[in-house]
Amino acid sequence: MSAVIIDGRRVAADIRTEVAQSVRDVGELAAPRLAVVLCGEDPASAIYVRNKGRVASELGIRFDLRRPPATSTCEDIVTLVHGLSDDPDVDAVLVQLPLPRQIDPERVIDAVAPEKDVDGFHPTNIGRLAEGRPGPVTPGTPAGCMELMRRYDVPISGRRAVVIGRSTIVGRPMALMLINADATVTVCHSKTVDLPSVCREADILIAAIGRPAMVDASYVKPGACVIDVGISSTDTGVTGDVDRASVEPVAGWLTPVPGGVGPMTIAMLMRNTVALARARRRLARV
Amino acid sequence: MSAVIIDGRRVAADIRTEVAQSVRDVGELAAPRLAVVLCGEDPASAIYVRNKGRVASELGIRFDLRRPPATSTCEDIVTLVHGLSDDPDVDAVLVQLPLPRQIDPERVIDAVAPEKDVDGFHPTNIGRLAEGRPGPVTPGTPAGCMELMRRYDVPISGRRAVVIGRSTIVGRPMALMLINADATVTVCHSKTVDLPSVCREADILIAAIGRPAMVDASYVKPGACVIDVGISSTDTGVTGDVDRASVEPVAGWLTPVPGGVGPMTIAMLMRNTVALARARRRLARV
Repeated sequence: MSAVIIDGRRVAADIRTEVAQSVRDVGELAAPRLAVVLCGEDPASAIYVRNKGRVASELGIRFDLRRPPATSTCEDIVTLVHGLSDDPDVDAVLVQLPLPRQIDPERVIDAVAPEKDVDGFHPTNIGRLAEGRPGPVTPGTPAGCMELMRRYDVPISGRRAVVIGRSTIVGRPMALMLINADATVTVCHSKTVDLPSVCREADILIAAIGRPAMVDASYVKPGACVIDVGISSTDTGVTGDVDRASVEPVAGWLTPVPGGVGPMTIAMLMRNTVALARARRRLARV
Repeated sequence: MSAVIIDGRRVAADIRTEVAQSVRDVGELAAPRLAVVLCGEDPASAIYVRNKGRVASELGIRFDLRRPPATSTCEDIVTLVHGLSDDPDVDAVLVQLPLPRQIDPERVIDAVAPEKDVDGFHPTNIGRLAEGRPGPVTPGTPAGCMELMRRYDVPISGRRAVVIGRSTIVGRPMALMLINADATVTVCHSKTVDLPSVCREADILIAAIGRPAMVDASYVKPGACVIDVGISSTDTGVTGDVDRASVEPVAGWLTPVPGGVGPMTIAMLMRNTVALARARRRLARV
């Protein structure tokens, strides 16, 4: 027996098709509009933003790219974000991270209006998730992991889930989503003692560490669902946090890298854009 | 060997003394003012509010009790809370729960200004806690549990903590605080399978279930710190979630009921009131 390989590309394509249909439904008057702030010259960020723009235009979402100079002050970016938050023709606002060093990312994230916060990172939206009453959007990468498990019928309720990593972007919201889905959830991180044995308790193991191929078969309970959120560039190409050759014979499900979680992030971003447009227009009609 | 019994009454008294000193420091111009909304005729709520008022006045905190009628609409309470949130002479706003059935508690909690949210339940404040960057106040009961462990030198970083219960008021913020304190944290709840064996992994076990004496020695790893948040009224008096006679010989530390976590809740509420007053006045001076 070898793990079912979860095909993130196929699921992401399905979601994009669903989103394109929703865009047509919601866009009777005007297509949903996603504003993206890209500040600085980080080459990886430039590629991510280009890919987001490409998918948006394929799905009929208006993509409004703002490129403030790398020398911008925190006040400049906060003012820009406030302007986009106040613009009635903008449905969704995304600030591409990382920002240049002189800019405090928390101040910028807090400046996005919660009802346009397409990444779901604003404290009010994370708070609703933490209270078990999430709003229309939740952070795209962990939401993508949940969606992959749902579409592959991975049982979640009552199962033990272990999340390795406690970042604001992945680990923490992932744990909250799994709690809300009735899993018994453990959060591990750099201070965890004997990580492999904690991970072997998991029916669902989420690796969001950022260390190439760290998770081998010694971390995996036979039959477990292993979701690999890591993306590292190595000499041999893009590698996840999971050692696929070691884990595939043991796991019940496995997301490959590339082609697993990665494609889901942009698909969920597009879905979030439409969800915000839908929520705003419904409100505006009342 | 028998568990160290954590004396919540003593620690709460120490905190009240510290708070009274802070009140004098912060109150040069005017004492901190805590507004409390008590709606309805719940007898337990009336007792809690009376106790809060008594401690507040002992510590020099102004206590401003509002008693809207039990027939109030949700709009009535939201309007009242907005008024208190806008009043420059109010430092802290507390809405006593539960509210009468016709009132949506989430709408009311969302109406408290985050900078006056003395219970720390507003989604923005829970979100900051969930993101690992808590504001000046966090929910009183779990914050009280953390304070008890700190004052009894219970090791937290790198230890395994298990929280039983995922309420908004205790379980969820408790788990977030323990993650932020570098514990490896597991959240259990009604859907957890084989709860005793999961609990036996814990160096720190937090019982916040509300079922009298459910946690016996079979749930406890020898030497663990057991924090009992439960308060149930039984024929034989007030009882926690922990079966003390069974657990005391096994645990390393144990909070008794009564006299453990209970007294901490009001003490932390008073500390939160002063923290908000301090934060607001510092801002007002800038």
